Amino acid sequence: MNLANDAPLRPIDWIGGLDGYVDLIDQTLLPVEFKCLECRDVETIHDAICRLAVRGAPAIGVAAAMGVVLGVRWVDAANRDAFLGQVDRVCDYLGGTRPTARNLFWALDRMRNCARSRGDENIGEVRAALLTEARAIRDEDAAMCRAIGDTGQSLIPDGGAVLTHCNAGALATAEYGTALALMYRAHELGKRFTVYVDETRPLLQGSRLTAWELRRAGIDVVLICDNMAGHVMRTRGVDVVVTGADRIAANGDAANKIGTYGVAVLAKAHGIPFHVAAPSTTFDMGIVTGADIPIEERSPDEIRRGFGALTAPEDVPTYCPAFDVTPADLIRSIITERGIIEPVSSRTVADCVGAAGA
Amino acid sequence: MNLANDAPLRPIDWIGGLDGYVDLIDQTLLPVEFKCLECRDVETIHDAICRLAVRGAPAIGVAAAMGVVLGVRWVDAANRDAFLGQVDRVCDYLGGTRPTARNLFWALDRMRNCARSRGDENIGEVRAALLTEARAIRDEDAAMCRAIGDTGQSLIPDGGAVLTHCNAGALATAEYGTALALMYRAHELGKRFTVYVDETRPLLQGSRLTAWELRRAGIDVVLICDNMAGHVMRTRGVDVVVTGADRIAANGDAANKIGTYGVAVLAKAHGIPFHVAAPSTTFDMGIVTGADIPIEERSPDEIRRGFGALTAPEDVPTYCPAFDVTPADLIRSIITERGIIEPVSSRTVADCVGAAGA
Repeated sequence: MNLANDAPLRPIDWIGGLDGYVDLIDQTLLPVEFKCLECRDVETIHDAICRLAVRGAPAIGVAAAMGVVLGVRWVDAANRDAFLGQVDRVCDYLGGTRPTARNLFWALDRMRNCARSRGDENIGEVRAALLTEARAIRDEDAAMCRAIGDTGQSLIPDGGAVLTHCNAGALATAEYGTALALMYRAHELGKRFTVYVDETRPLLQGSRLTAWELRRAGIDVVLICDNMAGHVMRTRGVDVVVTGADRIAANGDAANKIGTYGVAVLAKAHGIPFHVAAPSTTFDMGIVTGADIPIEERSPDEIRRGFGALTAPEDVPTYCPAFDVTPADLIRSIITERGIIEPVSSRTVADCVGAAGA
Repeated sequence: MNLANDAPLRPIDWIGGLDGYVDLIDQTLLPVEFKCLECRDVETIHDAICRLAVRGAPAIGVAAAMGVVLGVRWVDAANRDAFLGQVDRVCDYLGGTRPTARNLFWALDRMRNCARSRGDENIGEVRAALLTEARAIRDEDAAMCRAIGDTGQSLIPDGGAVLTHCNAGALATAEYGTALALMYRAHELGKRFTVYVDETRPLLQGSRLTAWELRRAGIDVVLICDNMAGHVMRTRGVDVVVTGADRIAANGDAANKIGTYGVAVLAKAHGIPFHVAAPSTTFDMGIVTGADIPIEERSPDEIRRGFGALTAPEDVPTYCPAFDVTPADLIRSIITERGIIEPVSSRTVADCVGAAGA
């Protein structure tokens, strides 16, 4: 992997041909250690998604697609139906990793459809087609992120201040990011601005990942604890808030990392526009409102001993949702690779994404 | 120190006579280790306040008062003026520990006045009077906290849910606490309820201290990260929010642990009453509005490596305010030992506290 600071950050890639491997940055080690995982079987990808070595809805989608290739490339199926059965089993297995990210299921559906649509080919050709499809998912995601950055960069004010939550950056995607794509493109165009980065408890994607990748690109960062966002908005001036999303319902309600909803409420109270940046693949048009988006709950020890140290009574009950839902009426606009959705409503979402989904 | 669970928690006390010592719980070690510090000189008290071994505005006031006794008890002054000069130097030294807590300066002023008011006595008698005064400050604080609990416990709904931020408990005071006094009293009266406890980054007073002391008393606790408060209010139901305060301006604007302001904004957005519990000594009637309350900034490493582990790029800039100010219009009521201030305004504050301050 190219670690030069002036190279675009590609957190996940397929290296070589069908006998190759998935190369991904182990994000659990950042920012202390920059180390890549070579994944040569689907179990390693499954584990990497579960323990957040790869995270961020688009990157999870890419990882899962490549994981399907790893899971079926050496399968010695008796016939095409048996092979498709194995594809289904691998997709189900990978679909059990995390429940909220829309892109995970979208990517797995695409891999299933890719396999099924190749009815006339032999199994070897289907395997090759699956690798091509997984690589296409990566490349398309990178292109979508660049398009999101181009579309949304005008929202980043020269000389101003932005606030973001969690990591919707290159590390969360194939390249460039979603929310951070706006900042990368604005920076490339010569704008200078400050990004307040919420550390994002419990897993600190803001302090570990966003602060790291924005500084790598030469962008000014001020790291804060999550509970400082309101005080910063009130006393220091924040011009705009931009976050990513993990799944967006047909009415524009957006699930994203826990804490996003609170930031959106604070932004509204301070008259600061709150924007979501996400590719069209993040929309789940089969879900009418955010109330139906499943919210993953994670281990109590992510709160009680998140840094290797015990920071609470060891058996204290916790509530540890990984996501929350920001209702559409708190979202000024959603920036997609197809354009900006503003105002956010069922009609404008359908106009942009299509009633049947991405 | 009595560590039995059914004994009231007294985090700071003077043990013995003038040749005795200050016994205080080292709160930096909780909840992993319950250990007391025996402080026999003013430097140890100064250090304990600076590194938050003792924290919480009322407890800081008690510690500082007792620290004055430690700082002058063996002074061999040539005359009364020289002795008073030493009292002033010790008070100035202790006043430099932390800038925001009102009770620190209030307690030091009381110790200065105590020394000055004893014009006819010899230095030995003044020393004894100072110890009596420091003990009185502790005892009065304990009595105030109990009165706050009695006054405010009716706000805690039987079968309901409360949310609190930071630690305004027994550990923050001489005994019983301020915000938590309401919960202790309600629990003693047989009410059953759940307390959502914000962990309170960066120093985790919520997870380390509040969760620990509420559970010690048998009260149901659910620990959450700070950024989950909005989602909890929206999806789980919170009936009331109660926090403490470190300094309250004459118009009712209240400085408290960073993040309190954000919680107050979220409470308003969800129609949940937000109350502050604080003794009258926390009011600073010389400060007209919260804009004039000095806000302490703490070390970047409290954010970057708060748990012994590096959780951010090691040189990333941070902003680390220890407090924020919640404007009076977000505060439904202030519960004091003298009664409940509601609505909160300059007039109602003056009616309760007195125009000249506590």
